[in-house]
Amino acid sequence: MSELQRALGLERSVIQAPMAGVQDHSLAVAVSNAGGLGSLPCAMLDFAASRREFAALRASTDRPFNLNFFCHAPPVVDAQRESTWRAALAPYYHELGLDIDAIAAGPGRLPFDAAAVELLEEFRPAVVSFHFGLPEEKLLARVRATGARILASATTVDEARWLDQRGVDAVIAQGLEAGGHRGHFLSDDLSRQAGTFALLPQIVRAVRAPVIAAGGIADAAGVAAALSLGAALVQIGTAYLLCAEATTRAVHREALASEASRHTALTRLFTGRPARGIVNRLIRDLNAADPAPAFPLATSAIAPLRKAAEALGSGDFSPLWSGQNASGCRAVGAAELTRGLVDV
Amino acid sequence: MSELQRALGLERSVIQAPMAGVQDHSLAVAVSNAGGLGSLPCAMLDFAASRREFAALRASTDRPFNLNFFCHAPPVVDAQRESTWRAALAPYYHELGLDIDAIAAGPGRLPFDAAAVELLEEFRPAVVSFHFGLPEEKLLARVRATGARILASATTVDEARWLDQRGVDAVIAQGLEAGGHRGHFLSDDLSRQAGTFALLPQIVRAVRAPVIAAGGIADAAGVAAALSLGAALVQIGTAYLLCAEATTRAVHREALASEASRHTALTRLFTGRPARGIVNRLIRDLNAADPAPAFPLATSAIAPLRKAAEALGSGDFSPLWSGQNASGCRAVGAAELTRGLVDV
Repeated sequence: MSELQRALGLERSVIQAPMAGVQDHSLAVAVSNAGGLGSLPCAMLDFAASRREFAALRASTDRPFNLNFFCHAPPVVDAQRESTWRAALAPYYHELGLDIDAIAAGPGRLPFDAAAVELLEEFRPAVVSFHFGLPEEKLLARVRATGARILASATTVDEARWLDQRGVDAVIAQGLEAGGHRGHFLSDDLSRQAGTFALLPQIVRAVRAPVIAAGGIADAAGVAAALSLGAALVQIGTAYLLCAEATTRAVHREALASEASRHTALTRLFTGRPARGIVNRLIRDLNAADPAPAFPLATSAIAPLRKAAEALGSGDFSPLWSGQNASGCRAVGAAELTRGLVDV
Repeated sequence: MSELQRALGLERSVIQAPMAGVQDHSLAVAVSNAGGLGSLPCAMLDFAASRREFAALRASTDRPFNLNFFCHAPPVVDAQRESTWRAALAPYYHELGLDIDAIAAGPGRLPFDAAAVELLEEFRPAVVSFHFGLPEEKLLARVRATGARILASATTVDEARWLDQRGVDAVIAQGLEAGGHRGHFLSDDLSRQAGTFALLPQIVRAVRAPVIAAGGIADAAGVAAALSLGAALVQIGTAYLLCAEATTRAVHREALASEASRHTALTRLFTGRPARGIVNRLIRDLNAADPAPAFPLATSAIAPLRKAAEALGSGDFSPLWSGQNASGCRAVGAAELTRGLVDV
């Protein structure tokens, strides 16, 4: 058992990755109660929803859990990019009988802020994790003062060092295999990002903090391999997507369970930031042109297409988030999946 | 010890990856004599040079070794692409005082052919490995008849199944972290290719043949991790590049030993096929435009630039082949490196 695992009070060396859009507290509760670290993604929750979810977590488990936040800078709207984006999507709106002028502006994804800190001060979770860097130092100090252990994602050795210098309790080494949003924050150059086999040992060597391995880990053999490469814990997302407690949509579940899951790509099309999902029609059509506006502005124009297509049983416009290794997905309870990942 | 390791007669579970351009028989001999499987890359050797190298191998070790061949289709010269390519390189020719009209046509890389089979029939190596697919069935049958075990690279599950159906003795799962040429042959779409952590277990599950892990493996912990993910053996290239027996040029050694090695990219610029190397000036300048002609035609126009720049101590135009994990490179003898990778 690593020192980090002991410090976090975990029976099993696995963190369930926070996955905005496909889970609420139920998945996190099941994982935490099974001895792993359940995570709740907060980026798509407003203040009231966060409160409800945190309260539900507290009420459903006395084990440690993790609240996860995004730290992106709010975007500047660029009329030219927005217009290019709408022009690229117009044929699909036409095909599905939707009105492109009726797109509702939505927040998409919220960055961590002072209101979130107040909730942390109230609910005092054991662990708080950040994606896309860290919040400003004043907010971070308040998070630290709650007693929460702080984790954050690095996609390069440079990012890991940057986080280490700022005193995080552990660095999540996010290998290029990982599903969902890439966590980079020092450079947008995706060619700087490496696979887990290459990234993990280099980060382990570069930082003082313990390192959590993420990306491509799907089963007990993967967990063992990551630990033997120097990880203190592993973080697993994709494997949980078929669990009963996940809110993964039907089209997404079908794609994950099919051979389609063997072909994923990084795309900015669903949110404006690169994220890995199963290749579908939108990615095939528009990924090369890459017309999406800045994160998270792409979200609002995708939402109506997604909703209409899903109503027809189609995942053509849905973000089918997945890592490069969906072979660990099982349609079982998350407790059973967690126990299968790490035997104790 | 896996069945494959026993069948190949190896004391250690490691194959030294064949690396055209940075080694001759000396590296292979040192690795084989240390109990691993040494490999000789043959794609850049003509018939006479192959004969000399095979004879030197035979004379220097009585252990098993591997002869490696490329299986690409010979390219069709496209005058338009050649002209675009020369236009892209012209400023560098000018800068280095070279005459772009004096480029010598060269073979670049030779595909496996009947003459190579004759040499195999004469020298009867224990192992023959192929990159870019397999030779035509008639030639493959003759290779098989020599008694050689046949290995071939797969970059996707589909390629692994294709090789398995054709009866290879083992499939090399080439994770996206690997240095040098990508081995794909069924699809040019690089987004279909995954990191070792994702690719290896999926291939292990998909084929009957034993699987060799390649890509991002740099040290003993990496070897152990790959074996725990189901690999029967591992193949390691980058870690050998600083060895005394490698012919790695000075500029290449310097790049591998520096922090520059943390940023690699896939590029077609040096040969015409995607290969991973450390990012240098040529890659920074031209990788996005990707003006290189088909493999291996790009080679001949790069050669004079490379030679002139290296004479000035610059690696600006050299293929600085490296995987995403150069942390295992050590300037020691290849026998010592091999023993450090797998303790027996």
